[in-house]
Amino acid sequence: MTRIRRNILRALLAGEKSYWQLIRYQDGSLPDLETELRNLLSEGLIEAHGQMFRLSAEGEKAAVSSGLSAYVPPICSSCKGKTIELDGVYADWARKFVEVTQDRPKAIKDYDQGYVTSEDTVRRVALIHRFGDLEAKDMLIVGDDDLTSLALGITGLPRSVKVLEVDTRLVEYINAKAKQLGMHNVSAELYDVQYPFRQELKGAFDVFITDPVETIEGITLFFSRCAEGLRGVDSVGYFGLTHLESSRQKWYQIQKNLLDMGFVITDIIRDFHEYDLDPEDLLTQGFRVVTKAPVSVQMPDEYFYTSDYFRIYAVRELTPLITGQVTLSDALYYDEEAYVTADR
Amino acid sequence: MTRIRRNILRALLAGEKSYWQLIRYQDGSLPDLETELRNLLSEGLIEAHGQMFRLSAEGEKAAVSSGLSAYVPPICSSCKGKTIELDGVYADWARKFVEVTQDRPKAIKDYDQGYVTSEDTVRRVALIHRFGDLEAKDMLIVGDDDLTSLALGITGLPRSVKVLEVDTRLVEYINAKAKQLGMHNVSAELYDVQYPFRQELKGAFDVFITDPVETIEGITLFFSRCAEGLRGVDSVGYFGLTHLESSRQKWYQIQKNLLDMGFVITDIIRDFHEYDLDPEDLLTQGFRVVTKAPVSVQMPDEYFYTSDYFRIYAVRELTPLITGQVTLSDALYYDEEAYVTADR
Repeated sequence: MTRIRRNILRALLAGEKSYWQLIRYQDGSLPDLETELRNLLSEGLIEAHGQMFRLSAEGEKAAVSSGLSAYVPPICSSCKGKTIELDGVYADWARKFVEVTQDRPKAIKDYDQGYVTSEDTVRRVALIHRFGDLEAKDMLIVGDDDLTSLALGITGLPRSVKVLEVDTRLVEYINAKAKQLGMHNVSAELYDVQYPFRQELKGAFDVFITDPVETIEGITLFFSRCAEGLRGVDSVGYFGLTHLESSRQKWYQIQKNLLDMGFVITDIIRDFHEYDLDPEDLLTQGFRVVTKAPVSVQMPDEYFYTSDYFRIYAVRELTPLITGQVTLSDALYYDEEAYVTADR
Repeated sequence: MTRIRRNILRALLAGEKSYWQLIRYQDGSLPDLETELRNLLSEGLIEAHGQMFRLSAEGEKAAVSSGLSAYVPPICSSCKGKTIELDGVYADWARKFVEVTQDRPKAIKDYDQGYVTSEDTVRRVALIHRFGDLEAKDMLIVGDDDLTSLALGITGLPRSVKVLEVDTRLVEYINAKAKQLGMHNVSAELYDVQYPFRQELKGAFDVFITDPVETIEGITLFFSRCAEGLRGVDSVGYFGLTHLESSRQKWYQIQKNLLDMGFVITDIIRDFHEYDLDPEDLLTQGFRVVTKAPVSVQMPDEYFYTSDYFRIYAVRELTPLITGQVTLSDALYYDEEAYVTADR
């Protein structure tokens, strides 16, 4: 029995679940989940009742006889397994961030956008603080639709925050906010990852933060640029990676590349980020997570799209795998595992 | 300023801390921490008052002018950043485990023993359950002073649990308990990691669990044996790794070896395990964490020894780096980074 099938069956043993909820109960990719849901439906082991999936009597028998039991997650209900709680000064950061970013630009899928919840953006900053990578650090953000730069600025702790971003709207928004809030050490500039950093940005940072596209080519390029931005030994990087759009095989290649560049992985926190995707866009813009769903689905009743958070640490002088200018097509952004970030 | 120095200073900015507490505030190795504490003392930036360390006026000035602020951990107070809470059925597992293991054998350092708290052993089992690696699985444990086998047996969920253990006392204890509790699918046998598995144990398991010794040679041998025990693609492994006795350079080599064998790393949860070390043994048996401390220390007022928890996943047929019989000396167990597990 496949891992995904087991996860679906044990989740449904504990009670009916919507499509969106079921996504949270497995750790495979979306295409594999959808295949398995179709199989289970056609085998008569599960049934769709409106928006909810249930086990059939036969399905329940099959699940139990396979040694499965009703699964109730042991995930911490306080932090949702994210390890960080926003209390005290951290709650102040969160309040301020929400207030400041009320008028944030809407995500557009042209640039693989789709931002994490405000709470998770601030959790991310608190995590970086926990790991000692915030105070008096020069921080680089490559792609910032999450507006992490402003969350960092609110803490008053980094020495500087530089955003490199391909979307003019975000560059302008971040610079205007930073000015308005008196964050003199926060700035954004237009940048396309196809081009190398200008000289002054090379070897100039202690920390990078990025939420890269999830093709091997794209992510390798993002990390290579970020590595060029770092000072070297003892510098660190933070990035999100999904299993929904990246198979474990892809993870393997990504980790191999990171080690080859001189990074060790120090932390991977599962489902650290929940994404606040626009439910209407999701239904109307042809995303495969909707169009390929085995039943006709409605708006999500759950943050279904998550990513795991990585921290990596430079153990030696870094050696980027890609240098110089490259020309990239859509293949930078999308591959056959992209089900939420692409409509192809 | 070194990472360790920064972590000491910002922890002390928030208030005085004992030696044992300070260990929890840094993510370097113990030798490096002790060097840095000595430096800070001799520079007059910190002072020891009885068992507590404090910042001097000069130290406070230095910390603040370096951009540091009083650090209050944002770590979830409910799960302590371990992601798992023991509630409902999971609390039952924990109660049962504590009850069953009241008379557990005392840890002896000859075999690098020293077990994690009972709560964390059960958290470990709950985590494995979360990740779908428990129900109807054949599970292998190499070295089981934590008695994870019994915690697994209590859940009634695995298909089988096999312990391979070098300490006769533990083999007998686990077998006697399993018999007494009617766990027919839990068994232990004597095993020395210098020898290959017997044929029937090769390729026979879905999951391995180990808490390996932390020398490169030792850990590579442990993982090679465990890999030989696994079925292959989609099999998984769980193990603890400290930063206290393993530098990030050592982590790097370990991760490289894991990838070379065909594993990808799916999770790393920091400080997942707290170790319940015998405080009296610690003070009297010449461990370097005590003998090399910069001041005369008393019994720990905190679980100071922790390890991070790794989950690894086989993306292809596994290729162990070591096969066949090997002869190992003390170098298997100890290297110059061993400060708590060795007295040399």
